[in-house]
Amino acid sequence: MHSFKEIAQKFTEHFNVQHFPKTPTTLYEPGEYFLALGAKRIRPVMCLMGNELFNEINPDTYTVASALELFHNFTLIHDDIMDEASLRRGKETVHIKYGIPTAILSADVMMIHAYKYLSKIDDLYLKRILEVFNRIARKVCEGQQLDMDYEKLETVSLESYIHMIELKTSVLLAGSLQLGAILGGASYGNTQLLYEFGRNLGIAFQIQDDYLDAFGNPEVFGKQVGGDIKQNKKTFLMLHALETSSSADIIRLKELSSIHSDEKVDEVLQIFKSNGVDAWAQELKNTYLEKAHHLLEDVMVVSIRKKPLLELAEFLIKRNN
Amino acid sequence: MHSFKEIAQKFTEHFNVQHFPKTPTTLYEPGEYFLALGAKRIRPVMCLMGNELFNEINPDTYTVASALELFHNFTLIHDDIMDEASLRRGKETVHIKYGIPTAILSADVMMIHAYKYLSKIDDLYLKRILEVFNRIARKVCEGQQLDMDYEKLETVSLESYIHMIELKTSVLLAGSLQLGAILGGASYGNTQLLYEFGRNLGIAFQIQDDYLDAFGNPEVFGKQVGGDIKQNKKTFLMLHALETSSSADIIRLKELSSIHSDEKVDEVLQIFKSNGVDAWAQELKNTYLEKAHHLLEDVMVVSIRKKPLLELAEFLIKRNN
Repeated sequence: MHSFKEIAQKFTEHFNVQHFPKTPTTLYEPGEYFLALGAKRIRPVMCLMGNELFNEINPDTYTVASALELFHNFTLIHDDIMDEASLRRGKETVHIKYGIPTAILSADVMMIHAYKYLSKIDDLYLKRILEVFNRIARKVCEGQQLDMDYEKLETVSLESYIHMIELKTSVLLAGSLQLGAILGGASYGNTQLLYEFGRNLGIAFQIQDDYLDAFGNPEVFGKQVGGDIKQNKKTFLMLHALETSSSADIIRLKELSSIHSDEKVDEVLQIFKSNGVDAWAQELKNTYLEKAHHLLEDVMVVSIRKKPLLELAEFLIKRNN
Repeated sequence: MHSFKEIAQKFTEHFNVQHFPKTPTTLYEPGEYFLALGAKRIRPVMCLMGNELFNEINPDTYTVASALELFHNFTLIHDDIMDEASLRRGKETVHIKYGIPTAILSADVMMIHAYKYLSKIDDLYLKRILEVFNRIARKVCEGQQLDMDYEKLETVSLESYIHMIELKTSVLLAGSLQLGAILGGASYGNTQLLYEFGRNLGIAFQIQDDYLDAFGNPEVFGKQVGGDIKQNKKTFLMLHALETSSSADIIRLKELSSIHSDEKVDEVLQIFKSNGVDAWAQELKNTYLEKAHHLLEDVMVVSIRKKPLLELAEFLIKRNN
């Protein structure tokens, strides 16, 4: 058994190889560029942890973990085009650096390489792994579409927002654990429990993300707070505020939502605070986190094996707070 | 055994189902729209023919044929964005009708559904089918990238152009036959021969396509001729003309290539004719076609079984001439 840090290290050793053919460089260099931007490799680490919860690491788990990381990066490259994002991890996004056509295509071929990795695993697990992977991949696309759809609406219900976050973020985290568990030989029941653990953890993670963007300590958080507010993004905080604040505050929030300005951040934060949105968010996050912990407790393996996953939950949720 | 027409009919019956979930409609409707534009379904038909050359149709072949058709449509939707094409089969392309973000994403999820179909086939063939499919898919992306790269160059060698056409067009046709042959239980040698048959046929098909765009009978061809010339596209004809015409004609072709005008079509065609480019193209096409026929002859099954594939070659190459 390995700690979070050790697993991340082991995965990086496996993953830092040349994934693509050398030519055409115009097609493959953009993908290598993006993969080299550096990332925490959370999904592959979760996949390996899902395996190690039940058994020693199956060599195929590294392969599936690599496929997950390639798939995740494929979605990021395409999402950046859709969201017209010009920076990712402080560097130019692929479509800014290489143009939209090449960004579309270099991500497409990255996804095909993800499936190439999947096709290499033992026949014993191949079909089941593919089925789970395909279901995850489909849902991630659905989540991105809902996210784009919701951006065009004036408001959405908190329920719809949670559903979107589940698809866009949670499913891939949860599925990574599940795929690892399958390759670790877990029972069906245990793989499902682990999936649900990941799903709840993912929602808690997003609540935390939304919370930190508004109330985080900029020095610890690593970026200026209030970005979501400036961009009028729908977040847990904003949607709850629009559902539960005083009538006057709701009217004011709607007025402010039509303004693109840095100066409104303080006013919005004040409305959030006076309506208890900050405390509510922490409470909601804890609800999901507790649910996740209960689900992990129900997984039928000795408690000691669960330690790295508890560490992971701690790392994801407590980060930069 | 079935004729080309019968196989196309049988495939259509299998394929005309709802491929995607109902929601989110914003994600799945664009894909259904595009699939309903109508197409000849040449790749799935080739897949089924590759199977029937050796054996009765394996039910899995319909599944793989559907995956091939979804993959092909995925590439068309993305290619249309990259090429800024506004019409496909006389109707609006997906990005024109639904916007670029949704076009990117609805094609992505279509590709995932292609893999979903693949994952359903019998374990016996699953790994091999995936390997071949992934190799094809990767090469198609490489071909599209080279096509975009070459568009930016003043000229490319005929050899490079043929290599690009192989990747962009031939490989998918050839691979469709090969996948069907695998599912029909063909020997490795026979699947390779059939792949090479398809590869040569694909190149002959593209030479014919380039030829008809310049010299076809517009009434039979179904569209105005000279489209490639007006758009300064690199074609077999133009590249050969630039390599072999008289010096004066080469200079004139280069001058004309900087002009976007309908009027230059006649002059370019005249240069092609006076340098024998039309006859050369027919000869080159026949060379590839004969090579394809020889390869098919070498496939070790009784001649009678090869009839539908000969019909197919006839249909592809003699069409609209």
